[in-house]
Amino acid sequence: MRHARVLVDGKPQHAVERDRALLLDDGRVLAFDAATWLPPVEPLERARTILALGLNYADHAKELAFKAPEEPLVFLKGENALTGHRQVTKRPADVKFMHYECELAVVIGRTARRVRRDAAYDFIAGYTVANDYAIRDYLENWYRPNLRVKNRDATTPLGPFLVDRDDVPDPMALQLQTTVNGEITQLGNTKDMIFDVPFLVEYFSSFMTLQPGDLILTGTPDGVVDCQVGDVVVTSIERVGALQNTIG
Amino acid sequence: MRHARVLVDGKPQHAVERDRALLLDDGRVLAFDAATWLPPVEPLERARTILALGLNYADHAKELAFKAPEEPLVFLKGENALTGHRQVTKRPADVKFMHYECELAVVIGRTARRVRRDAAYDFIAGYTVANDYAIRDYLENWYRPNLRVKNRDATTPLGPFLVDRDDVPDPMALQLQTTVNGEITQLGNTKDMIFDVPFLVEYFSSFMTLQPGDLILTGTPDGVVDCQVGDVVVTSIERVGALQNTIG
Repeated sequence: MRHARVLVDGKPQHAVERDRALLLDDGRVLAFDAATWLPPVEPLERARTILALGLNYADHAKELAFKAPEEPLVFLKGENALTGHRQVTKRPADVKFMHYECELAVVIGRTARRVRRDAAYDFIAGYTVANDYAIRDYLENWYRPNLRVKNRDATTPLGPFLVDRDDVPDPMALQLQTTVNGEITQLGNTKDMIFDVPFLVEYFSSFMTLQPGDLILTGTPDGVVDCQVGDVVVTSIERVGALQNTIG
Repeated sequence: MRHARVLVDGKPQHAVERDRALLLDDGRVLAFDAATWLPPVEPLERARTILALGLNYADHAKELAFKAPEEPLVFLKGENALTGHRQVTKRPADVKFMHYECELAVVIGRTARRVRRDAAYDFIAGYTVANDYAIRDYLENWYRPNLRVKNRDATTPLGPFLVDRDDVPDPMALQLQTTVNGEITQLGNTKDMIFDVPFLVEYFSSFMTLQPGDLILTGTPDGVVDCQVGDVVVTSIERVGALQNTIG
């Protein structure tokens, strides 16, 4: 069977091919030429794009022996990677280095297309904390964090709270801190981002539409260390929250 | 205001922070310790992960002067990139090289976690054709196709049909062809993939859960050429379909 999705009366409908035409589920027949074709997969009620920055703090790039990028170094993450506050993230057996990354996460609040940086904050719903774990063993190339490094199930805790935008008057001057079993291992400040939040909203929305609920994980400062099973990792951002996670 | 999402009676619920506790929308109060915390963003009814392979045909890697990768070279795409059959994809003003990529797209049919290659086809719903356009001007690094290259709105036509798995007895022996304004510019065969479809299902599901509706775009053979405004590009795969797109 050959399945299509077409727009009929403004609504996505399922159809199958029959005698070189489209047979809709309600029995109507539509010529190929008369159809508005959608991708032939189930439409989503809502989608979420999760954008993540690499090397967006000069000190972290230096820590990893890279020069700072001239353009945002971005990759996407899947919904499978997300998990909540106080959950467990698994360290795969037999890996040598798994590190946390404390990151300010921006939550988009309005559809954003070609937004200028001076209007960027209008399109932001609020902020939360992300911990974007990485398995360094699988990394072949920092410029291409592959999916085994960055997209494993439940390796990106997010939370605890979404804090309304207006409750964070200056997101570009927030202290970040990570503790492992209560000891501080990472300290930084969002003022040291190479590409700041208004720039990122302008940049992304210049070539892709951002939707409400989309996330921008803005990168991490230096101070990443290996985590072991049983470690309690708390990534905190001033005014935004303290996100706790345990390595399992 | 600080918003949380917590699981209560097995269902995601919205809450706000009140006096160091969680106030649910129905008026109940929950201690932080008693909550199962979800990411503090609206849960999706369904999500879709779109996985795309780079350099998965040896001849294409050679065409681009790269050696074939030893491990799948994969990136994710956002839902914003998808569009349907007979739609228009924009060539940005002032770019020098925009090329199509004819790709067999695999549609996942069942939740897949740690699937072995000999069972891989059981987890596939069917196949469609993808055209994964790239703007080569913005490419700094083939190993990291950045979002300006590969994630612009409506730059990944998909369709026309989802063809049921059992109607394609051997997906690893299908002729691929692209025409631009009726002239053949790309020819290949899925038998020349470096990482075949069963391998890819096994590989991805070894570290991430694949969900029904997820897509795997399996890469393109050699023969990519620059496309101009007005060009009609048809990417075809034997038994699967002929996907038409116009450059706008």
